This record gives sequence, structure tokens and C-alpha cells, in this order.
Amino acid sequence: MTSFFADRALLPEGWAADVAIEVANGTISTVTVGSSPDIGSTRLHGLVLPGLANAHSHAFHRALRSRTHALGGSFWTWRDLMYEAAHKLTPDTYHDLARAVFAEMLEAGFTAVGEFHYLHHQADGTPYSDPNAMAEGLIAAADAVGIRITLLDTVYLHGGLDADGYHPLSPSQLRFADESIDRYLARSLALAPESPLATIGTAIHSVRAVDPNSMRVIANDLDRPTHAHVSEQLEENVQCLAAHGSTPMQLLFEAGVLSPSFTAVHATHLTAHDLELAGTAGSSVCFCPTTERDLADGIGPAIELTRAGASLCIGSDSHAVIDPFEEMRAIEMHERLSSHERGVFEAEGLIAAASSNGYESIGWSGGGRIAVGAPADVVCVALGSARMAGADPALPGDAVVFAAGAGDVSDVIVGGRHVVREGAHESISVAAELDRTITALFA
Amino acid sequence: MTSFFADRALLPEGWAADVAIEVANGTISTVTVGSSPDIGSTRLHGLVLPGLANAHSHAFHRALRSRTHALGGSFWTWRDLMYEAAHKLTPDTYHDLARAVFAEMLEAGFTAVGEFHYLHHQADGTPYSDPNAMAEGLIAAADAVGIRITLLDTVYLHGGLDADGYHPLSPSQLRFADESIDRYLARSLALAPESPLATIGTAIHSVRAVDPNSMRVIANDLDRPTHAHVSEQLEENVQCLAAHGSTPMQLLFEAGVLSPSFTAVHATHLTAHDLELAGTAGSSVCFCPTTERDLADGIGPAIELTRAGASLCIGSDSHAVIDPFEEMRAIEMHERLSSHERGVFEAEGLIAAASSNGYESIGWSGGGRIAVGAPADVVCVALGSARMAGADPALPGDAVVFAAGAGDVSDVIVGGRHVVREGAHESISVAAELDRTITALFA
Repeated sequence: MTSFFADRALLPEGWAADVAIEVANGTISTVTVGSSPDIGSTRLHGLVLPGLANAHSHAFHRALRSRTHALGGSFWTWRDLMYEAAHKLTPDTYHDLARAVFAEMLEAGFTAVGEFHYLHHQADGTPYSDPNAMAEGLIAAADAVGIRITLLDTVYLHGGLDADGYHPLSPSQLRFADESIDRYLARSLALAPESPLATIGTAIHSVRAVDPNSMRVIANDLDRPTHAHVSEQLEENVQCLAAHGSTPMQLLFEAGVLSPSFTAVHATHLTAHDLELAGTAGSSVCFCPTTERDLADGIGPAIELTRAGASLCIGSDSHAVIDPFEEMRAIEMHERLSSHERGVFEAEGLIAAASSNGYESIGWSGGGRIAVGAPADVVCVALGSARMAGADPALPGDAVVFAAGAGDVSDVIVGGRHVVREGAHESISVAAELDRTITALFA
Repeated sequence: MTSFFADRALLPEGWAADVAIEVANGTISTVTVGSSPDIGSTRLHGLVLPGLANAHSHAFHRALRSRTHALGGSFWTWRDLMYEAAHKLTPDTYHDLARAVFAEMLEAGFTAVGEFHYLHHQADGTPYSDPNAMAEGLIAAADAVGIRITLLDTVYLHGGLDADGYHPLSPSQLRFADESIDRYLARSLALAPESPLATIGTAIHSVRAVDPNSMRVIANDLDRPTHAHVSEQLEENVQCLAAHGSTPMQLLFEAGVLSPSFTAVHATHLTAHDLELAGTAGSSVCFCPTTERDLADGIGPAIELTRAGASLCIGSDSHAVIDPFEEMRAIEMHERLSSHERGVFEAEGLIAAASSNGYESIGWSGGGRIAVGAPADVVCVALGSARMAGADPALPGDAVVFAAGAGDVSDVIVGGRHVVREGAHESISVAAELDRTITALFA
């Protein structure tokens, strides 16, 4: 029996003191408030949160951090650089890079990741001898460092769209694509990870890369959490309206994709009707604010979506920053910049977005909660740094969201395994591994 | 003779390798590129920057970090909480709090601070027996921890304004105010700090608190760097137009305040004519983006001001965050959010804003540069963290601006004194001192 003892912990019913958490088989078996520490239980000093989900990640984008600014331009300029990095990866080098990136996430307090994976094939589009070699490399990387993963296996069929319909794939898109939706299904359904920390979901890359008939097949034939990039850029809306007479959200709705197991990623440029569709369906929306500002996407309607009934979660997407606290804070800060109002979201609501909402979005239903039966994933935020000093003990959630940074994470536990202690991953040297793998990629 | 040896350093002419920096009497006496380290010189491994200026600070606002969110509201709601904290301070408690805050700044990489100081008197407005007790406490606090300071002694005469003219001071504003501009001058001109790291400037609190005649006296009678809050909130513009028929920037221009030694702080809501006035005068503009988003001010026209001829610098203002890298990055990120374009500023331009431009703004002309004759203020950003891992060695400025955080600062030298080593201040325990002083303030 593994057990942890938290000075203060955020439970589904609110903050509690002196919380004993027992774990059996990777699951929380008891939660006792007002307890005293057992001999042999691990003390967690600080503010203990439920596990935090990074619901939208493209692990290899991490290689681009601080390397894409000098050229200027727009999202589309950045995309060319991203394609260039993508083309250098092999199953082995991607495994090593992802292992380091997933460990960076763990050290920052992310316990679970939704890996939106589209680097399926060889650079010319030929499948590897094992057609799922890349996905399996990512799952093995997550397993090696102990992060929970949902491999969101991505459908990518077309090169873009305009009023004349879908474009053929460009040479730099060949490795992302399956030949047809049926070939996608055959390949993807063969994915069956053994790790108890891994599961499979589906991603529709975007309305640019997937046609409505294929979306319909996904909606009808697959019972998995399903994600899609939706309206990150205004140009996508223009293209979609020209081709289909619908916004991207409408198109997904008409294809039957919107449901409580669907997550619209970004959802930056929406109409009032789009908001209503997402909210009425009880879908999730994944905001990635540090990426959305880095890529000059704009500020999405986070509060309006929440009010309409959508469930908000967060992702670090391009990994310009890997810091769940910065993402939570940025959702509120971007709202303040656009609305000139403060305190639009409650701190605990933003933590729920990052924890239980995120776990739901990537298919770990009931997770991201410190509660009996939930996966034993928790994060301890230490109080000892200058950043955190002076916080009001009566407002622990505000301290987490408005003062903490990734550097304040002391301990991370995933499935009962204590993978980060004193801020450092138990087995890999994160910075050295990132340096080695990224330097080799650009050599 | 003190000397430092930098693996890589940012000189006025660009990045250089193997740079030997010698210091005499607190000033840089030689800079030798392509050198080898002398015995006895201190090695700085990483990316060595010139000193960074926090050109806009209200030290006591640090006490409010993560404590003002729950109430929601607007800038004006926040201001009530800020007034409440202000009223608890005495010269002794403010000295102790400021010492900890200035040490937090040093650990984050700020080597100089422009302290916009308006907490002059006792809570009921009565002067202390030494009328400059508060200012002297702040200067002593800076001296104790070794940060360079410009005490921007603030003129505050009125409680607000509207179409009927200036309002009397509210009870919570009494301690900020001098009785008249002449009494301000008499008090302020008596300030004569002995420390070689301290100097005095003037601040016009805002058009809300200072009338045009008083502004004119400042412009004519004082030869000091002069700062003013300008158009942080739309409501200020409305009030100023109603009272004077001018925007705040126009009013300051008409009073003769705009010049190369003037800095407009925030400058968020400007007209095209305001931009032109600030630019033509060669004035500085101080952006405080982490505060401007925290206070729901909005996004100011940073790039337009720069193109008009104004000199951009940065400040951490309310200290919701103390991190010069986050401020530099946020200027570009906010531009991206509003313009949907990337790479509006060059990384080295943002570093210049934080260093040489900031030093000019607060009256340390020629500072914030690694050059002979400049104050010996430098900052070393270590490369060893997961955040910084994988940066392109050919793009050191991009790594500093787009990857680094305050936690990456290893060494800080001010006036030749090595005040931060391995990320920790040489003499005070910053977190413990912040906790002690802030907890006592709210007890």
C-alpha cells in the first residue's frame, strides 16, 4: 500500500487540511481529511492538486522553442518551419525527443497528455514496416517517464481547401496522411497499448485536412474521445465557408462529431452560433493560450463558451512554454485584456479546467480528482519560492493560479508512482536529454 | 580590480564570445572580446546581458500578489485594495518589505529600479518628523540589497477630475499628497542620497492628480528624469477630455513635460496624435505588460510608439510577476494577439528596451550597456534548465526573450558587486523576508 499525506489538498468539495491519500493498483483507495501522517507515508508539503492534463500536445513542436521568431510572418510562416522539423524525425529519434518532452511536462506538473499525433509515415508517405511505429514510439516514451497518455491518432487526408474543394497533399504533408478513411481505421484500430497509463483517441486534424464524409465515419464507427483543431485562424473559417458554406464548428456538427466526448481545440474565431453548438452538445474546448499568443492566433471566447455549456480544458500545444500555471493564468489574463474586466474565472474553476475537465476531454473519465476510485495522479506545489511568498493562506487556489510557475512543482505522482521529487524527474536528466535530442535534430 | 569573464555576452555591437570585463570603482573599465579568463576573474557561464532596468515599480504592490483576484471588478476595484495595503505601511515596515522586493528583483535579473514613490506621509496626511522618511527608507532598502535605484518622487495634489475640475483628496489619498507644488519642491529637493547607486527623479502621478500649472512648474524648475502614468485606463481619457478638452498626453505636452527625459508609463489608450507627440519629443514609454494584463488595462500601441520615435522600456509595476524575460516576451506576445502578426519586435530590440532604454529612462544615461564607462551592471542567464534546453546557439537573443524565465538567472552584478550567485541573493533569504513582511502587513 502506497500512501501520501498532504498538508493541504484540493478535493472535489474544496480545499482540505491534513489529507491522507492511499493508493492501490494505481488508483486512489481512500481519502481521509484531518488525518495524521502514517509512518511510511510520503509527506507532501505545500498545495496538493489533482493531476493536471495537457489536453493538447504535439510533442515534436518543442524542438522549435525560441527558434521561429526571427523570420516573423504569421501562423503560416511558422507552419513551414514546423513541417521542416517534422521531416527530420524517425521513430527512434521521435521516441527520444518525446521522452524528454514528456518528462519536462511531468516536472512542470502535467500528469497526463493528449498527444495529437499526425506524424504517421515515412517522409515520402510510405508506411513504416510497422505502420504504427511512430505512435508506438510515443506511447513507449510516455511509459518510460511515467506520464499518462491518450494517443489522439490523427486523421489527415487532404492538403487544404477552398471554394473548388479539397487540395491534394503537398510533398511536406505526405507523411501525415493515410490513403483513405478506411486505411486510417485499419491502421488505427490495430493500436492496442499494453501500458495501463495509455489509451487511444481520435483526432480530426481540421476541416482543412478532413472532409465531411470522413468525419461522419469517425463519428459513427469509433467510440473514442475525439479532438479537432477548430477555427484557430480566420483563414480557416474563410476557406471552410467558401468550400462548404459552413463554419468549421457547423461542419463538424453536421457530420455528427459534436458530443460530450468531442473537444474543439483553440476555438478562437467563433460565431455566436458556433458557441451555441459547442455548448449545447456539452463538448469540451481546449484553450492553449501560450501557443495562441505565440502563433498570433488571437484571443478566443473562453468565458462565452463556458457560459454556453462547453467544458474548458488546457493544452501547451506547441510547447513554446510548458507550464500549466501559466496556461491557467493566461486564460484569465487574455479575458482581462479583451474585456477590461478582472476575475472573470474563479481560480478553482481554472484548476478544474486543467484537471478534471482535461482528464474527461482525453478519455480518463473521473480522473483529475483527488477522490476514491480516481487514478492516483497528484501534483504538489511548494510554497517556498519568492514567487509564492506572501500568498494568502485563505486563498490557496489564487496562489496556485496567480503566483505559481512550473518551477514551484516539487512532487508529481502518476498512477501512484512518485515520478518527480524535489522538482526533478526520478530517472532522466530532462535538460540534457532535450539538448541532446534537439541539437541532433537540427545538426 | 574586479573582473568577470563571460562565455557569451551581448555588447552594444552584438553578441560576442569570450568577453573579459574589468571593473574599477563600480564602472566598466575595459571590455576585451576573444580573451581568456585571468586567474581571479569570475567566470559567468551562460548568456551575459547588460543590466536590466525595472523602469516602473511600486514596491509595496508586491504585497497584493494573488490576493486581489477573488473580488473581480476592474482596475478601480483593485485600486481600493491597493489603498488598503498602502495604509498599513510605516517607514520601518516599508523599508523591510521593499528590501525583500528589491532582492526578488535582483534574483530575477533586474539591476536597477525606477521606484515611482507616492507614499510620502502618515495615513492622515501629516508629514513624518522627517518628511522624507518613506523615500529614505526605500533608498536604504535598495542600498542594503545592492540594487541601483532612481527614486521617482511623486507629485500628487488632487483626488481626481471631471468636467467641473479637480476633486479634493479622499481620506485614502491624504498620505500621497503634498499641500502644494511648492511644498513638494521644498520637500523633494531636500532628498540627497549618499549611495552611489541612488539618484532622484520626479513623477507626475497622473493627469488625475496633478493640474497643468503644477506640471509646468515641474517642467521648468526640475532637471530630473520625469515619469507619469498616462492613459492606463479609458476612464482617465474621458475625465481629462471633459476637464481640459485634451487627452492626457496632449495636456502633458502643452505643459512642457514631453522631452527626451520624460517617460509616459503604460500609454495604453492613445490617439494617433498622442503617438506623434510622444515620438516627436523623443520621450520614453514604459510598458508593464504583466501588470497591464493583470489590471485589465488593455494592449497598448508598442510598435506604433516605437515607429513614431519613442523609446520603449519595461517595468513590473504592481509585481503581479517579477520577471524581466516575461515582460520582454509579453510585449511581443500582446502585439501578436492584437495584430495576428509574429516577429514584430526583434529579440535584441526587446533586450535593449529592458536594458539601455530603461537605464536612460530612469536617468542612468549610458547604462544598461556592456561598454567602457558604463555602470558595471550585468546579468548572466544560465543555459542549464529544461526551459532553455535545445535553444539555437546562433540565436542567443531569441533564447533569452522566448525561452528564459526569472529562474534562469544565475548571477547578477551591480556596480561591480556580485549580489546574486547561483540564483540566490548574497545576504538575504528573499522568500522568507517576503513572507515575514507581507504576513505582518495583513495580520
